[in-house]
Order: sequence, then structure tokens, then C-alpha cells
Amino acid sequence: MDLYFSPLACSMATRIALYEAGVSADYLEVDPRTKIVLKDGSDFTMVNPLGLVPTLRTDDGTVLTENAAILQYVADRFPQANIGSGPGMERSRLHQWLCFIGTELHKGLFVTLLDKKAPQDAKNYVLGKNLSRLDYLENHLRGRDYLLDHVSVADAYLVTVINWTMATPPVELAKWPALKAYYERLRARPAVAKAIAEEFELYKAEIARHKAAA
Amino acid sequence: MDLYFSPLACSMATRIALYEAGVSADYLEVDPRTKIVLKDGSDFTMVNPLGLVPTLRTDDGTVLTENAAILQYVADRFPQANIGSGPGMERSRLHQWLCFIGTELHKGLFVTLLDKKAPQDAKNYVLGKNLSRLDYLENHLRGRDYLLDHVSVADAYLVTVINWTMATPPVELAKWPALKAYYERLRARPAVAKAIAEEFELYKAEIARHKAAA
Repeated sequence: MDLYFSPLACSMATRIALYEAGVSADYLEVDPRTKIVLKDGSDFTMVNPLGLVPTLRTDDGTVLTENAAILQYVADRFPQANIGSGPGMERSRLHQWLCFIGTELHKGLFVTLLDKKAPQDAKNYVLGKNLSRLDYLENHLRGRDYLLDHVSVADAYLVTVINWTMATPPVELAKWPALKAYYERLRARPAVAKAIAEEFELYKAEIARHKAAA
Repeated sequence: MDLYFSPLACSMATRIALYEAGVSADYLEVDPRTKIVLKDGSDFTMVNPLGLVPTLRTDDGTVLTENAAILQYVADRFPQANIGSGPGMERSRLHQWLCFIGTELHKGLFVTLLDKKAPQDAKNYVLGKNLSRLDYLENHLRGRDYLLDHVSVADAYLVTVINWTMATPPVELAKWPALKAYYERLRARPAVAKAIAEEFELYKAEIARHKAAA
């Protein structure tokens, strides 16, 4: 199984899921600017024309894209890890949280805030429109340890997204204490701590590479 | 089963799915500006604090939010309609398309283009960043009738989103002929034609209501 990723991008959710499941995979780093696969210099857009990570190649060579799809594939492939959901309404709740994180937080808020090329008007617009999504999350997490009643791939995705608040100063995590406690609880998990530490080192190398190329 | 919806909003995908399945439901219209449920004047944010449609209340009173979750709930609840997916990779592809439509098209492009309050810089930003997503879709749809190998809830979602191009002139559907043919093929289905015709009438009434209140 190959996971195409960029350091600290939303692909980190799949790394966390794989670490939680205790399974190995080949991690292929993609430079987010050049879309080059670092290992062999190949063009990542030949694998995924959208140029987006995560992209997963399964053992039989099938290429799967989109975070929610890849995370559920990993959860279903390794059921002993119990990071997916049972059938029925529990599965619907997993769908609900993956969709909420992907649409309201990731695309609705953080993509624009993290983009150095986004105009300030666009950043102000998404802040005005979607910052309240964190209040909703705060309400849900009060008195809960995880999004579902056990650690799941939805938590792997959410901790990855909330980790971006380190780089988005307009979003002060301290304003949402239950969410902050959740983030710290998740970060204390070995799988999450390992993923963040490893990808932070790769991220620093990416920044240095971009500076050298400038 | 109650479906909270607003005319021509992304909640129309669930109406289409229910019509395709041939099942009945109570459709509760929500004014997108006031968040009032038209039928009884109640406050929709008491049902879904995010104020977002679609929101579904199942027969046992469970409230489910988020388009991808609701569409898959309907597909799973009415398997005889065959608008969901089998297990394994077919299910992953359904997840993939629902996620792509929700993140890249709906939130990444159309939400901002459709919002009269969005600054022009924000509109230009999403056009520059995400218009190419339609090229990707065009490539996938060339030589295919549907996103999967049969009509599914992903098509219900996509036709709903592409229907918005009528109101977003910078996106000229004619530039993507396979996508345009797909849209016309879907619109010709009785379930889709009925949903669009009904919601267009309700949309005109909504506009008139807003004008009268201004």
C-alpha cells in the first residue's frame, strides 16, 4: 500500500489511521508546490490529476483519492483496529463527521486561511462565514473523549485539521476549551504524536527546500 | 421521515434520491435567510444548530446532518432502489465521489460563487483555484453515463450542484461537453425533472417573499 502525502497536510490523517492500526505502508512524499514525488522525481499528477494528497494505491494497484474515502478504506481493511464504525446509525455518524470536517472545517475555513496566495478579503470572508463551526464542535465535544464513542478515523482527520491552528493565528484554540482539551488528548496518543513529530521534521525540510529554490 | 430543505439548495439531492427510490417523506421548507421552518414558523436552528440543510429526521426521531451522510442513509435504507453501492471498492468509489462533490465543487467553488455577500476577490480566488475541478470531472464522464456504473446518490448530488451553473455565469457549462451531456441526461430522468420543477417553483416564491420583506 502506497500513501502519497505532503508533510502536515490532510494526508496526515491517513498516516495516523495506519499507525493506530499498527500496519505498515510506503509513504511517498509529494512536494505541494512542484507536485514531484521526492523519492523518484516522478510527476504526481500522473497518479492523481488533481494533484491532491492523500492518494492511496492499494496492494492490487487501485488508486483511491479523497480523504473520507481513503480513511474509511483503511478502517474497513483493518477491522481489528476498531477505528471505523459498526453498521446503521453509527456508520451514518461516521459519515456525518467526516463530511463536516471535510466541508465545513477543511475546505470551508482552513484551506483559505492556510493559503499564502489567498487575498485577505477571501480570508475575512471564510472567517466571518465559518468560524462558528468551531462553536458547534465545542458543544459536541463537551463531556466526550472522541467524536464517536471510540477513537475513529474521524478523530484522525479532526486532530490533523485542528493541528493547523498553529499556523492560523486568527483561530485561537484557547477560545474553545473542550476542543483544545480534545486536541491535547489526541496529541498524547502514541500514533498521533509519532505522526506529528515525523511530519513536522519533513515540513521543516520542505520549507528549507522551497527557500533554497527561491 | 422528515427532510428539512431549502429550494434548489444541496438538499435537493436527497429529494432526488427519495424520488428515485419511490418513497415518501415529509418535506419541511426552511427559509435560508431567517432559518424559519415555513410550515409552523419554528426555529430550524433548534433542530440543527448549524442551520444547514439538508437535515433528516428518521422515523425514530434521530436527527442526521451532512449531505454525504444523509444520502448514504437513504441509499442504505432503501436497497431495492439500487442507488447506493456494493461493499469493497465500489463503496470506496461512492465515498470518493461524494467527498469530491462536497469538498471540491460544492464548498470549494459554488458556495462562494452563489453567495451574493461574498467579495469579488473571494469569487476570483475560488475560480482560479478550483475551476479546473470541472476538467477532472469532464475526463471521468467521457464515455460514461453516471459517476459509478449505475445511477447513485452521487449523481443526485452532482446534478444538484451542476444545476447551480444556471446562476453562476462565470462557469459556462458548454465548455465541458461531457459534463453538459451528463447534466442533460440526468435532468431527463423523471425523479430529477420532478424535483427541479417543484423546487424551482418554491425558489421563485422564496425570492418573492424576500423581496416583499425587504
